[in-house]
Amino acid sequence: MHSYIYLFRGKSLSGMKQQPTTGWVKTVSVSAPSLQNNTADAERVVAALKPALTAGTITIDLDLLRKLPGLIRNAGNDLNITLSRRNDHWTVIGIAPVNAPAPIGAAIDLGTSRVVLRLVNLVTGDVLAESAFDNPQGAIGPDILARIHHAAEPGGLGALQALIVDGLNGELSSLCRRCGFEPELVLRAAVAGNTAMTHLFMGLDPQWIIREPYIPVVNRPELVKAADLGLKLNSRTRVYIFPNIGSYFGGDLIAGILYAGLHHREETAIMVDVVTNAEVVLGNRNWLIACAGAAGPALEGGVTKIGMMAGPGVIDQVQRVPGTRKLRIRTIDDLPPIGICGSGVIDLAAALFMSGMLDIRGKLVPDRCDGRFRYQADLAHFVLVEGKDSGTGRDLTISQADIDSLIRSKAAMYTILETISQSVGTALSDLASFYVAGTFGSFINPRAAISIGMLPDLPSTAYHSLGNSSLGGATHYLSHADRLAEIDSIRDSITYLELNVNQDFMNRFSAAKFLPHTNAGLFPSVIREAS
Amino acid sequence: MHSYIYLFRGKSLSGMKQQPTTGWVKTVSVSAPSLQNNTADAERVVAALKPALTAGTITIDLDLLRKLPGLIRNAGNDLNITLSRRNDHWTVIGIAPVNAPAPIGAAIDLGTSRVVLRLVNLVTGDVLAESAFDNPQGAIGPDILARIHHAAEPGGLGALQALIVDGLNGELSSLCRRCGFEPELVLRAAVAGNTAMTHLFMGLDPQWIIREPYIPVVNRPELVKAADLGLKLNSRTRVYIFPNIGSYFGGDLIAGILYAGLHHREETAIMVDVVTNAEVVLGNRNWLIACAGAAGPALEGGVTKIGMMAGPGVIDQVQRVPGTRKLRIRTIDDLPPIGICGSGVIDLAAALFMSGMLDIRGKLVPDRCDGRFRYQADLAHFVLVEGKDSGTGRDLTISQADIDSLIRSKAAMYTILETISQSVGTALSDLASFYVAGTFGSFINPRAAISIGMLPDLPSTAYHSLGNSSLGGATHYLSHADRLAEIDSIRDSITYLELNVNQDFMNRFSAAKFLPHTNAGLFPSVIREAS
Repeated sequence: MHSYIYLFRGKSLSGMKQQPTTGWVKTVSVSAPSLQNNTADAERVVAALKPALTAGTITIDLDLLRKLPGLIRNAGNDLNITLSRRNDHWTVIGIAPVNAPAPIGAAIDLGTSRVVLRLVNLVTGDVLAESAFDNPQGAIGPDILARIHHAAEPGGLGALQALIVDGLNGELSSLCRRCGFEPELVLRAAVAGNTAMTHLFMGLDPQWIIREPYIPVVNRPELVKAADLGLKLNSRTRVYIFPNIGSYFGGDLIAGILYAGLHHREETAIMVDVVTNAEVVLGNRNWLIACAGAAGPALEGGVTKIGMMAGPGVIDQVQRVPGTRKLRIRTIDDLPPIGICGSGVIDLAAALFMSGMLDIRGKLVPDRCDGRFRYQADLAHFVLVEGKDSGTGRDLTISQADIDSLIRSKAAMYTILETISQSVGTALSDLASFYVAGTFGSFINPRAAISIGMLPDLPSTAYHSLGNSSLGGATHYLSHADRLAEIDSIRDSITYLELNVNQDFMNRFSAAKFLPHTNAGLFPSVIREAS
Repeated sequence: MHSYIYLFRGKSLSGMKQQPTTGWVKTVSVSAPSLQNNTADAERVVAALKPALTAGTITIDLDLLRKLPGLIRNAGNDLNITLSRRNDHWTVIGIAPVNAPAPIGAAIDLGTSRVVLRLVNLVTGDVLAESAFDNPQGAIGPDILARIHHAAEPGGLGALQALIVDGLNGELSSLCRRCGFEPELVLRAAVAGNTAMTHLFMGLDPQWIIREPYIPVVNRPELVKAADLGLKLNSRTRVYIFPNIGSYFGGDLIAGILYAGLHHREETAIMVDVVTNAEVVLGNRNWLIACAGAAGPALEGGVTKIGMMAGPGVIDQVQRVPGTRKLRIRTIDDLPPIGICGSGVIDLAAALFMSGMLDIRGKLVPDRCDGRFRYQADLAHFVLVEGKDSGTGRDLTISQADIDSLIRSKAAMYTILETISQSVGTALSDLASFYVAGTFGSFINPRAAISIGMLPDLPSTAYHSLGNSSLGGATHYLSHADRLAEIDSIRDSITYLELNVNQDFMNRFSAAKFLPHTNAGLFPSVIREAS
């Protein structure tokens, strides 16, 4: 998969701050020593810092103490002090003249398949650059289960940890170089990942995560020295690792909630992140409930023969030409089509259904397919692009089996949403906001997803794409020194709903396998549009 | 100078504890994981620890987290947890089965010329072994000033730090080996030293300590990782470094006050430690006042030609045969005499004065010396040991100049004691207890020191030798996990009295240059004995 690097120069992505300051860097004036005030250098720095901090104790890292006399005598009295924080204890990890380059924070989304990182100016909170790379642990196992098994082999855990740490070191170093500074300037990092990835990154034995009763080594890793993780940044760099709730609910989701702000709002909202599972959080400022369930890989473009991850030449949008059964496709970078990604498949299913080429059971209707229906190896297929127009020279087709699979996925998704909302007595139609995180959220067309009954029939304005919410949460931490208690309170206030695949669930699932649903009253806008 | 090693097996030196426990090691029962209680391993350890700690937050070191799943699954549920503490934050630095060997603490007195260390059982507080070695920095400079100047040379500070750290590593490793365990078992250390030695040990630039306004890099170093100091103990070992008040009042003295318990008592007491200076602390549980002044190197045996540090063949006691002017000398290890140490010189001066061989001005009275008076190079001398009886084959003599020097030292000492006690309106005669720390305190005969008017005329029962009070304080810290606030409160409650050598001081000094004093009423017991 292609990598990308964005460099943002001098621009704040948040755009909301008047006087941008993250709280991690305090500008203080250190009193000059005198016979009347002859406390030590360190204690004068601490005394100068105290009024700038709400509470707590302060320590200075030993290797800064070693540089302190020279630093404060050469820098003048005004200093930028970079901090790290654990509960109410602050550690001074950087001291520099006010006119020195700002210290940098690295926000890291530690995905199973993809790792994304951002550099943040720790003074202003501005995002300076972003890049992504495939998780190098993929070489050992594409899925997390294979890696956990590999970690149990002799040397396996060390090898997995080295892969991700080396990958991060390479990417951080090249991103810093592109921004024109050394990795030593990176004094803070924030890492959000699922529970297993977090364990592999920290070198913690993950084997108990997948065995009953599913026990992580740690729920709140909090602060770790970058050097102890093998990260080649500053010797004083501290890494915050987002807490998990257990094997099933990782720091990436806690970061996502922080980013979406579900825990702040009066009105109940929902957040959905489709990674391997569909992870769902529902709640408001009084309560949060979460669950996860298999919604099927169709949503990631992993099922259909022509399905693929988003990339150049991949079909990411399909629309029907209004009033006709003609389809208009769009590919990434406008290249000849070579395959279709998850959002494209959902668009396609919606277009086929709304134009009558799919019936309410999700079966292709040969008569309505205008010659694009054919049998291949005894399986019904719909020809999306003919070989003469494709980038591969071959027809791009989708089979009835592919469509069936998508329908199962969308039914699972809807059933999960329905189950979690009913568990707290809320109707999906009452939701004020629906946040869709991740790549899935960035590309999906909510109207199409509503048309096939995958997402509830809310007004388009209720749907919000969060983008990479895990990375967003990690960035948020680096931009706000006062969010530790908030993160802990998110973690502590989540009730986890175990999804029991019981008769009730199966009944709902069966009802949701129709297009859009057996209870058409749940999708009034679809019925209006189709009629 | 000779080294010594004591090994104490299975004995408590304190002898006061009924159920010995230092508080640094907690035995806890960690709940087994279950589907009902599926919090992480780390959080179950923390939950088990909470009730055992009065307050605060708890973290577990990353490299213990890496071993945690195996540790708690193999060790059974009962574990010995070793802790470190900073304010109200506890760090778990050791986890072991209850039947594993107890973790060890190393108490270190970081003297300018001599380093003494002890190993302490961190469960019971028992002292297991003790040893001492010359500070290897002596190779660079015998006194601290020379070392501070050397530290300013390129590479000088690093070289000085390496010398003391290597010395400690060697001594710790050999002491551990003699006790039958590996240095990895040492999880805690406590270090007390003067401000400059503490800086050299931590690799902190000491140059500002000796320049007006005399600023240390740090007053409260608190906790440092042993590995960050270069100490080869456990990777998780934490070192507590006693705080200083400034350039003039080091952690060794704070440790000494803690050990003597001055800050606990209703009655006002005094503590004197003669190192290079005489360091004096006066106070009770309501207040503490301290000062330091040059009392002269005569007290360390550094002035007289025949003066030397205590060692085999060195005269450490001189008594007059009652009713005569004959002297009885004692040497260390009963070897033929080769020199005299500080306590011997004080004894000698007292014996000479009490037998009338010295007059009240401290001058030798030739007529009374029974042929032991002679001129050498125009200087009056007293022959203490004739060449035929000495270990060197030469006469051991003490000159009038040596005696004058001793008198100046004793006068300075008394003047300092008088000045500090008068500054708070206390008479020296009202002191309930007089603590004498260090080697000086261990060997000095208070009666002799009173006879020459060096120490105030208190009953012998008021005098207490503390031994190495700095080491005692470091040991105390390792034996009591709850003394942090106490140490800080000692540090914060000390008023430092700047000794101004003004007319008043000089008047007192002049009066104290007589034997025992111009005001004989201050020394009634001496007058009684002499008459």
